[in-house]
Amino acid sequence: MTSITCKAAVAWGPGEALVIEDVVLDPPNPLEIRIKVVCTSLCRSDITQWESKAIALFPRIFGHEASGLFIKKLHTRMHARRRDFISIKLCGIISQGKEGKNIQGIGSYGYVSLQILHHFGYAKIVESIGEGVTEFEKGDHVLTLFTGECMTCKHCSSGKSNMCQVLGLERKGVMHSDQKTRFSFKGKPVYHYCAVSSFSEYTVVHSGCAVKINSNAPLEKICLLSCGVAAGLGAAWNVANISKGSTVVIFGLGTVGLSVAQGAKLRGAARIIGVDTNAEKYDKGKSFGVTEFINPDDCNEPVQQVIKRITDGGADYSFECIGDTDMVTTALQSCCDGWGVTVTLGVPKTKPEITAHYGLLLSGKTLKGSLFGGWKPKSEIPLLVDMYQRKEIQIDEFVTHDLSFMDINKAFELMRAGKCLRCVIHMPN
Amino acid sequence: MTSITCKAAVAWGPGEALVIEDVVLDPPNPLEIRIKVVCTSLCRSDITQWESKAIALFPRIFGHEASGLFIKKLHTRMHARRRDFISIKLCGIISQGKEGKNIQGIGSYGYVSLQILHHFGYAKIVESIGEGVTEFEKGDHVLTLFTGECMTCKHCSSGKSNMCQVLGLERKGVMHSDQKTRFSFKGKPVYHYCAVSSFSEYTVVHSGCAVKINSNAPLEKICLLSCGVAAGLGAAWNVANISKGSTVVIFGLGTVGLSVAQGAKLRGAARIIGVDTNAEKYDKGKSFGVTEFINPDDCNEPVQQVIKRITDGGADYSFECIGDTDMVTTALQSCCDGWGVTVTLGVPKTKPEITAHYGLLLSGKTLKGSLFGGWKPKSEIPLLVDMYQRKEIQIDEFVTHDLSFMDINKAFELMRAGKCLRCVIHMPN
Repeated sequence: MTSITCKAAVAWGPGEALVIEDVVLDPPNPLEIRIKVVCTSLCRSDITQWESKAIALFPRIFGHEASGLFIKKLHTRMHARRRDFISIKLCGIISQGKEGKNIQGIGSYGYVSLQILHHFGYAKIVESIGEGVTEFEKGDHVLTLFTGECMTCKHCSSGKSNMCQVLGLERKGVMHSDQKTRFSFKGKPVYHYCAVSSFSEYTVVHSGCAVKINSNAPLEKICLLSCGVAAGLGAAWNVANISKGSTVVIFGLGTVGLSVAQGAKLRGAARIIGVDTNAEKYDKGKSFGVTEFINPDDCNEPVQQVIKRITDGGADYSFECIGDTDMVTTALQSCCDGWGVTVTLGVPKTKPEITAHYGLLLSGKTLKGSLFGGWKPKSEIPLLVDMYQRKEIQIDEFVTHDLSFMDINKAFELMRAGKCLRCVIHMPN
Repeated sequence: MTSITCKAAVAWGPGEALVIEDVVLDPPNPLEIRIKVVCTSLCRSDITQWESKAIALFPRIFGHEASGLFIKKLHTRMHARRRDFISIKLCGIISQGKEGKNIQGIGSYGYVSLQILHHFGYAKIVESIGEGVTEFEKGDHVLTLFTGECMTCKHCSSGKSNMCQVLGLERKGVMHSDQKTRFSFKGKPVYHYCAVSSFSEYTVVHSGCAVKINSNAPLEKICLLSCGVAAGLGAAWNVANISKGSTVVIFGLGTVGLSVAQGAKLRGAARIIGVDTNAEKYDKGKSFGVTEFINPDDCNEPVQQVIKRITDGGADYSFECIGDTDMVTTALQSCCDGWGVTVTLGVPKTKPEITAHYGLLLSGKTLKGSLFGGWKPKSEIPLLVDMYQRKEIQIDEFVTHDLSFMDINKAFELMRAGKCLRCVIHMPN
């Protein structure tokens, strides 16, 4: 395996337009894979981080909501549990046109050296020597995962958490395994984002940060399940667990908020109240199940008072999908005493502290949060792809723009101006 | 019915020692009852309000954790539901020594005039004319309820909330029905506390703010179920729903915190970590199930870091039982990502705002609160009395001091100095 040169959209400074550069991408380290990005969509949190001067890791390649083809897989992972005899199943994939001849394991990490078997143009190794192994084959369709699943840590094995202790959200712009970058430009490192960096023709991710999905699913649509749409559905289903006939309030009708609406609708919520200052969102909102709209700018009283009045004391569930911690307080105030549940999903652009009067909680309310809607990403996201293919959930309607990779900055402009839901960026063939 | 004169411990100003005064107590209004207080214990929230200059309602009679005998009941409550023919069952009780001869109903409120039947020295009326009526008889043993249960409002009928919309926590020092006081001193009103005011020989409460309990239960013990002990048990069982084998951290080992410990122990928690700066609480803590103690003053690092370290990432549940909103943040930091639940129980003495970094919630934590441990007071507190009588829960061990009514100020001194758990004040016979 060797490094490759590919085109990537590099952010050179906070808020500066991306520049398509020829970057060098290292071969994957143990447990990592190299994939060819097919489609990637722009998420609000890419912009939040790109604009941030507080965590200024530049140059950097953003993008974390992506679909791709699996190009290389060099090794797999063994359970960390101590066993005298470990059964491992290995699937090794070779890179397109540059087939690796073997998978070199590292003894101290417990990997094994294996020969790759060539068959019909791609390499496939199947040995009965693995438990808990990630399986990939050349040409597999994958979604990248900005928070991974190692399958073995305390959280992954808990059955009640997706906060993987090994492959959880990476914030330092490097890879989980060695805290280094795989990208470089003229010999200097280029930082990753969420250990995905999909604004690039090729990228390297940990094998636990990608999931194989049905190859019949359209990659230009299902890339949205890699973050926003799944996050909203999960917040409605896994975190709030919305019940039939309930009243739901959603602050912010972007992709995440409208995905919450879709989740609420599918759970049979009776009223889904959307709150947004952008009235252009309302038509789209209706198609996802929003039944009523409130524009706070049109109200003569605080929006939480309006909501309490029209819902006889507050909604059953409220969701903060804007990324404004002050709005979390408003969301808490908008749900009812006794059993009201407020879910915070947004990543705040400025003030990171949520403030709430103790009385809001003393009256029996619950404040919850989640990363990625509580989904266990490798275990559960393929199920959402299947739901989409059975037409049980909508995704297509979120895609307001299809853009070529060369036009990636236009996606940034559209999202900053509130003129899009999701821009899908199509990488060169 | 007439007014009576009785002795009450009157607070004349914030933080001023109570003065035993002869106050006039009006007869009960419709839906109210007059009771003879037998025992009342001092709760920390009595002191918080007594010290408060922010909500200075004086003169005032504090006390809200009490047991008593039911003395008068003049009327009952009909369901608000419209029915052409309402079946009502009335139980009227006459005052000791001054038996009322009839119960005068008020037509516009739907009450009826009935003759009292005298039998063996107390009046008992039983007619098949009521649905949803609160039943009391002379000599019934009752617990007062600082938050009531009307049985018919949206919350009471929800099955999932104890935040009664009719008889919920009263904060203005008056009665629910007419926003006036029943107590007066030299013709001027004396404010109530939580619509209970049990620091008095007699008091008037709404019939929905008292519950009949087994007359075999010792009133000098079970008065603690009227607030603190029930609140802690409910937080553990109803709000957090502690699971077997879990790790629990409790901030503040007062009566509420130790009741949480007891609840956790009875649910089979594996580790119950008590955090308190008062090492004198530790011996008592052990008897309620606390397995480990941490004194933050003895730690070289923030207590949440100690807890995260010794619990491999944080406890499953954490409880704030001090009444310090900053400690709510610490409690959130002390429970684990993914499924950690923090319950806030305390009423803060100063800063009412809880502040938490959004990341604490984004990592899958839940922050919950409750009033009175989520118990539906009339429906469920008698069950706790029964549990106590079957020796399934401990109460006696919370009573560190028995004091006469005349020594009530000593109870205030003991609690302010952290020298007691519960002081039970015995009223004159």
